[in-house]
Amino acid sequence: MIEIERKFLVKSNAYKQSANKSIHIIQGFLNTDPNRTVRIRIKGEQAFITVKGKSNDTGTSRFEWEKNIPVEDAKNLIEICEQGVIKKIRYEIPSGDHVFEVDEFFDENQGLIIAEIELQDENEAFDKPNWLGDEVTGDPKYYNSQLSKLPFRNW
Amino acid sequence: MIEIERKFLVKSNAYKQSANKSIHIIQGFLNTDPNRTVRIRIKGEQAFITVKGKSNDTGTSRFEWEKNIPVEDAKNLIEICEQGVIKKIRYEIPSGDHVFEVDEFFDENQGLIIAEIELQDENEAFDKPNWLGDEVTGDPKYYNSQLSKLPFRNW
Repeated sequence: MIEIERKFLVKSNAYKQSANKSIHIIQGFLNTDPNRTVRIRIKGEQAFITVKGKSNDTGTSRFEWEKNIPVEDAKNLIEICEQGVIKKIRYEIPSGDHVFEVDEFFDENQGLIIAEIELQDENEAFDKPNWLGDEVTGDPKYYNSQLSKLPFRNW
Repeated sequence: MIEIERKFLVKSNAYKQSANKSIHIIQGFLNTDPNRTVRIRIKGEQAFITVKGKSNDTGTSRFEWEKNIPVEDAKNLIEICEQGVIKKIRYEIPSGDHVFEVDEFFDENQGLIIAEIELQDENEAFDKPNWLGDEVTGDPKYYNSQLSKLPFRNW
């Protein structure tokens, strides 16, 4: 599957009022190489292994493969992940025909809040809520794989 | 699961006469870091993703996690693996209470043949067939993850 996503900073906490769901995420990386990231994620009561390939030139589309795994397996796998396990709360915010996923980071990435929207194609139009800030699509430093190596606190 | 394995070179082709099974394997690595290797393997008509942790000091035991995946998924994942996809035939050779797995390598690793035996504990006794050569347990250059980076042809 190819993912098309655009990514933005968040200017205010107003997004929380519009959220209809929030879920706690803990994740680590078995590889942070942008050509082949391997992520272990515990998301609420589910867990996944996810492999992502290299982004295209505009940074909007990327090969992605994901599989459900038992939460206990994920905990064992996170033990051997690279340093820099990421903890965040993900809020789901309906907006017109779309849904924004807003990640509020903790620990080493405290203070960082990122919104993502998934689109059918790169040029699809979508509403921009007033809490939405600058676009950072394709900027590698906002990749979760990079945040685990060089966290927001150290920018 | 913790794996206990000992690994040997193979001195002659005599092992093939005792094999009761052989299977074609194609594999690539999403990470060759010995602390967290991530392998994609197509084995006959099945495919797997396997994560291995760091070896213990004697090189005999290692955290291992494996999951079945569709062969088509494995083919896509091998596309984004590191350079150096490994092709080999694995022969299964019963020997006393144990089974040796002998890997005959092709392409960049042509000429290399390695036998492995899985044990219950590190000191368990086992028969040594006359085709079995020197022990190479724990020598990183014989790890498949390393053979994909520095193949036998270039030693």
